[in-house]
Amino acid sequence: MKWIRYSSGETTSYGILTGSTVQPVVGDPFHGYDVTANQLQLKDVKLEVPVIPRTFYAAGMNYAQHVKEVAERHGIEPVLPVKADIGYRANNALLAHDEDVIIPADAGERIHYEGELVVVLGRKAKNVTEEQALACVFGYTIGNDVSERDWQKLDRTFWRSKNTDTFKPMGPWIETEFDISNARTEIRLNGQVSYSFDTAAMIFGVAHFISRMSQYLTLYPGDVIWMGTDGSSPNIRHGDVVEVEISGLGTLRNRFLRAGA
Amino acid sequence: MKWIRYSSGETTSYGILTGSTVQPVVGDPFHGYDVTANQLQLKDVKLEVPVIPRTFYAAGMNYAQHVKEVAERHGIEPVLPVKADIGYRANNALLAHDEDVIIPADAGERIHYEGELVVVLGRKAKNVTEEQALACVFGYTIGNDVSERDWQKLDRTFWRSKNTDTFKPMGPWIETEFDISNARTEIRLNGQVSYSFDTAAMIFGVAHFISRMSQYLTLYPGDVIWMGTDGSSPNIRHGDVVEVEISGLGTLRNRFLRAGA
Repeated sequence: MKWIRYSSGETTSYGILTGSTVQPVVGDPFHGYDVTANQLQLKDVKLEVPVIPRTFYAAGMNYAQHVKEVAERHGIEPVLPVKADIGYRANNALLAHDEDVIIPADAGERIHYEGELVVVLGRKAKNVTEEQALACVFGYTIGNDVSERDWQKLDRTFWRSKNTDTFKPMGPWIETEFDISNARTEIRLNGQVSYSFDTAAMIFGVAHFISRMSQYLTLYPGDVIWMGTDGSSPNIRHGDVVEVEISGLGTLRNRFLRAGA
Repeated sequence: MKWIRYSSGETTSYGILTGSTVQPVVGDPFHGYDVTANQLQLKDVKLEVPVIPRTFYAAGMNYAQHVKEVAERHGIEPVLPVKADIGYRANNALLAHDEDVIIPADAGERIHYEGELVVVLGRKAKNVTEEQALACVFGYTIGNDVSERDWQKLDRTFWRSKNTDTFKPMGPWIETEFDISNARTEIRLNGQVSYSFDTAAMIFGVAHFISRMSQYLTLYPGDVIWMGTDGSSPNIRHGDVVEVEISGLGTLRNRFLRAGA
């Protein structure tokens, strides 16, 4: 089942998407809902970020080739993470499918994409085992963890490099029936495949992250965990369009514009 | 004016606190409210975290003596930050006044407090000047940024060291009339003053942080910015009570318990 969050006129609602038909609901899939008798067409609504999480988690380093390419960029030896330490991103930066990423005028040239699988929690999780963990997942969506690499190196935190407004596209919807075992993530720059990888080839998998995190913290319905990317990115320029497709999930597409360009 | 968020029976509401009398409202101070005709007594309600922010910001290093003591702990030279790079904490870790901090059983001995002024935003802020910044502030409260220093050193992120459930006490209320210029922050361990400092003696002030952050990101009503602490902390043990008092604001008090102790 595909869940969308959308705007129509002044209101933002959740709906169930079947083909190109939207079935609006009252409420939301995390805290309860009622299906309404209306029907809308997908082309007549504006897709919004599929969920505003209570906490926005991100794995960061979680695929081997990405770790190697980051190490090369810094001129150091690659060291694979030996334990699943989750990181964070900020809600202000979230952006919907088909909205524009705005690169600040004072940003450097090294604007990079990272195409990622996003886990959306459906149940409160505390002290769950790996065997119990996947039962707490509501569904999956797609994220693009945009970075400005100069700020990432210069600043004491990731506040500008990764959390500038519009730097976290997420969507287009939440798919509840996703099977990770056969999925590929493909990233396209202006329609050309620039990198693709086996989505499941994570250093630490979804169940392991959820179980380990839940030993110390409570995960809530609607929380998201971005699972990391593989490979690296060319520099993205004004006008470029980046698509992140995960087979079985859909495609997240965003244009990049430089402020003042 | 003092705003509290409280529970009474099954419901959580906002209210205006005058002396020991609570005037409940329908709605909230960030998006609009109506005052009701009821009156409650403070002793009859349970205080809750005064706001669940959309994004939870934290300055981290923002007082000189704290920077020096952190450097000493790591055996390195102290380096004062030269620009205001904001950091993040996680909503799952928030805890109300008078609730217990639970130290996980596998945590080390170095559990430390950090008493902090907390800024609560009242208006959306984007591209505001330092002169405009304080007009976006709704009020102020108090935070205790609890840390487990072994995890802080060992982990790749602050996920366990600073964001374990209950590690972010915040409250007891939001004061809208606070004057920072004469305020002192006093931290007491089991009733004895363990550190006190001039609240305004920040490396980067509130207006500077808001203005600089807003050049890259949008601040929303209800967002919080924890402004950092000064000095250092002894190791907190099972049964200890920590109070953070900021003159003109109030006192945030929490007991610390070790799981399984």
